[in-house]
Amino acid sequence: MPAQTMEELVSLCKRRGFIFQSSEIYGGLQGFYDYGPLGVELKNNIKNAWWRANVHERDDMEGLDASIIMHRLALRHSGHEATFNDPMVDNKKNGKRYRLDHLVKDQKAEVLAKVAEGVGEQPENIAAVSARLMENPARAAELLVAAGVRDSHSGEVGEWTEPRPFNMMFKTTVGPVPDADSYAYLRPETAQGIFVNFKNVVDSTSRRLPFGIAQIGKAFRNEITPRNFVFRVREMEQMEIEFFCAPGTDEEWHEHWLEKRLSWWEAQGVPRGKIIVEDVPADDLAHYSKRTYDLMYDFPTLGHDEIEGIANRTDFDLGSHTKGQAELDLSAQVMENADSVAKLTIPHPETNKPVVPFVIEPSAGVDRALLAVLSEAYHKETLENGNERTVLKLRPHLAPIKVAVIPLARNKPELVDLARQIKADLQSLGLGRILLEDSGNIGKAYRRHDEVGTPYCVTVDFDTVGKGEDAALTDTVTIRDRDTLAQERVAIADLAGWLQGKLR
Amino acid sequence: MPAQTMEELVSLCKRRGFIFQSSEIYGGLQGFYDYGPLGVELKNNIKNAWWRANVHERDDMEGLDASIIMHRLALRHSGHEATFNDPMVDNKKNGKRYRLDHLVKDQKAEVLAKVAEGVGEQPENIAAVSARLMENPARAAELLVAAGVRDSHSGEVGEWTEPRPFNMMFKTTVGPVPDADSYAYLRPETAQGIFVNFKNVVDSTSRRLPFGIAQIGKAFRNEITPRNFVFRVREMEQMEIEFFCAPGTDEEWHEHWLEKRLSWWEAQGVPRGKIIVEDVPADDLAHYSKRTYDLMYDFPTLGHDEIEGIANRTDFDLGSHTKGQAELDLSAQVMENADSVAKLTIPHPETNKPVVPFVIEPSAGVDRALLAVLSEAYHKETLENGNERTVLKLRPHLAPIKVAVIPLARNKPELVDLARQIKADLQSLGLGRILLEDSGNIGKAYRRHDEVGTPYCVTVDFDTVGKGEDAALTDTVTIRDRDTLAQERVAIADLAGWLQGKLR
Repeated sequence: MPAQTMEELVSLCKRRGFIFQSSEIYGGLQGFYDYGPLGVELKNNIKNAWWRANVHERDDMEGLDASIIMHRLALRHSGHEATFNDPMVDNKKNGKRYRLDHLVKDQKAEVLAKVAEGVGEQPENIAAVSARLMENPARAAELLVAAGVRDSHSGEVGEWTEPRPFNMMFKTTVGPVPDADSYAYLRPETAQGIFVNFKNVVDSTSRRLPFGIAQIGKAFRNEITPRNFVFRVREMEQMEIEFFCAPGTDEEWHEHWLEKRLSWWEAQGVPRGKIIVEDVPADDLAHYSKRTYDLMYDFPTLGHDEIEGIANRTDFDLGSHTKGQAELDLSAQVMENADSVAKLTIPHPETNKPVVPFVIEPSAGVDRALLAVLSEAYHKETLENGNERTVLKLRPHLAPIKVAVIPLARNKPELVDLARQIKADLQSLGLGRILLEDSGNIGKAYRRHDEVGTPYCVTVDFDTVGKGEDAALTDTVTIRDRDTLAQERVAIADLAGWLQGKLR
Repeated sequence: MPAQTMEELVSLCKRRGFIFQSSEIYGGLQGFYDYGPLGVELKNNIKNAWWRANVHERDDMEGLDASIIMHRLALRHSGHEATFNDPMVDNKKNGKRYRLDHLVKDQKAEVLAKVAEGVGEQPENIAAVSARLMENPARAAELLVAAGVRDSHSGEVGEWTEPRPFNMMFKTTVGPVPDADSYAYLRPETAQGIFVNFKNVVDSTSRRLPFGIAQIGKAFRNEITPRNFVFRVREMEQMEIEFFCAPGTDEEWHEHWLEKRLSWWEAQGVPRGKIIVEDVPADDLAHYSKRTYDLMYDFPTLGHDEIEGIANRTDFDLGSHTKGQAELDLSAQVMENADSVAKLTIPHPETNKPVVPFVIEPSAGVDRALLAVLSEAYHKETLENGNERTVLKLRPHLAPIKVAVIPLARNKPELVDLARQIKADLQSLGLGRILLEDSGNIGKAYRRHDEVGTPYCVTVDFDTVGKGEDAALTDTVTIRDRDTLAQERVAIADLAGWLQGKLR
């Protein structure tokens, strides 16, 4: 049975070095996390699996790695400067600020019911309640007070201000002169780096429609109330594809990507049965989106929440960033752009006339993927001997450590030296991280490696070096399987082949 | 012969999609670059080679991936808030700002000589000239004007202000309340994320001395005058190791790392003969550094400049971030720290008493590594037939594309389909990116792949599908070697093995 609570995962992550609070020794920085020795391997493995499936194994994809700090005009024309907002409300009593929908969601049922009733919405639909409140901020302030909405910090009923939009982009000053034109933004999504490079990629690769551009990288959102471990953070990593296609073929490609992405999640150990595909209702769609599928994974404690969005964004993005919009017969409504110097068109595959392509955007979060993968892999089991074990049943390609090589005794140089040699030989196969585990206690080593998901433990014992009871076992080692607990004796000479067969 | 000028490299990078100016369609953002389809593969390959050599293939290293935005106290106690400065000077005539040493370096010889003479230094030693100027800013301002120092933009003699320090850290506001305590920094180096996680890593891995922590990630420096393509940028990527050892063993480990790093560079195609190891003179060392080796690569046009620094930083960093400094008998002079909540000690390997370890820091730049690798790989050759070709003689493990599979004619489905199948089969080996190249012109395809460093081109022709003149060639393909231009006929069934042997 996968993880039952988020707390078990948080505890494992800290204890075993997957994830730490950022700048922890200075009290921590809310919404920021550091990936430890095992976390970085798991994260790299997830990113590599995504890159391999979406870039290397396709014939219609190019990769990209754009800068994090972007020109303010890029994020103005993307729409983020004006609309990348969350609703915010202050408690005048203590100056604390809250994201409106989070504050409302955190109330007791009776308070929430009063607020929902006040705006004529159902209490289950927090997003709608929040949207209605934002329509009339003055009335919203009155309603929050009248309904007795409490401050999550103080626990007391707050004296609430009118809610107002808060822009979530991090801003900074670039260059030595801090004047009105020198600010730039940390990108709130990797996607915009793809759109502004569309022409560069087409020109340097001679791509024709349909094709995509894929990118993995950090993105930053100044969340008002970061929460739920690495689920809602201020610094995150994204894996995004912008797939460009001829208008009219977009719906077909949208379905293609939904199917592809679900099967990718399945291959990472996140089964379809645990993901609800939400066909976002037309009312909730951004104005430029024709249709969006949200993949909602059933997280322990949190319940269903988004791990990926797959949006049909029409020609909105390239249409927003292109010059000469008026001549381009755009389908989306875009803000006028007098700043861009590039025409973002490509020949239509049939007519050969320049067209602004439609785009399908499968956008997944690395941190959320890691959390979903860990949730599914996490198991507590009672063994035959009655002992309990925690085991991460990670797919081998995602396991932070592929093989632990364990000398049975840490004070026997012949065992340790041979184990070290075996480790080095296996490492050279390029299968991922192989660990020399010379803590000297085989039982503890097995338990430790169960807990971090190491698929195989290879033990070097006295038989291996010809000093055991059975001479036939000389030059053989024991391989222990994480999931079945089965132990198999394999000749050292066959070890590489045996493991390659299992791990590749 | 490797690249002769930086211009050839810049031109290749743009044309073939290695590197683009960031936010180019909005006029670009100075000091920021985006890596295109081939650049991202080359960069990933360099990072993977580094991670493999320094984390996976060692038994004394752990990996880490810390957040980019860091707590202001972390960067106060690291010393960056007070001292991570470059000397800056303004021209009152036009408000332009310059990094003092860059401005001085850009002057004509006679002007530079006057400035140098004015502060009693040699004109070759720009760093010393700049340091002397900063010692007496009022006199410096007079001297710059008197010597006739010209503004690089206007070309006229400037009206120079007193030079003053400019802090290079990018600052931003975290959270919804922009008060005095809500600012944070984008890390100016990945190193500090390692130091503040020292205790977390030790606790979760049970490491003992000596051991290291390695990290690859973005770092940000608000350079006054970014220049020289990706050599001096505002957003860079670093590959850093902090290797912790017992005081007294530090000098030996310093030599170990110098040797290891030089041999790593050699394995990436950057030979020792092109790197000068500069033993930084004691006068130029930071106060906490016992000794530093700078690896200076001979870049085309730029000349020798730093690709890696290997510093013995003593116990300065952990000593600066630890609590209870007074009891710790630190060797380095550190600023008092009343903020840290963690004691950053580890048992001494011999006495078992808590000690703040010394640290050896090999710190390399990914962008500079890519530039050095490209410089070495870049060749212009005259072929036997008199034609010229540009070829990137990249080590196969670094090549962005490992194999191009080329159907001889793009309008013959049987050739294209078979080529696609071969591509898919080779891709599944996990060797890196394999490209289906169906542009239909074999000569152009070869030239294109020479120019981007693809080690092997595999051609599917009419013989392959049994429609050529020689029936014996059915089910065989031609493999062309990038460097030797030799062509070899190999059975499709043997192709995977043949390429694995060459590429792994």
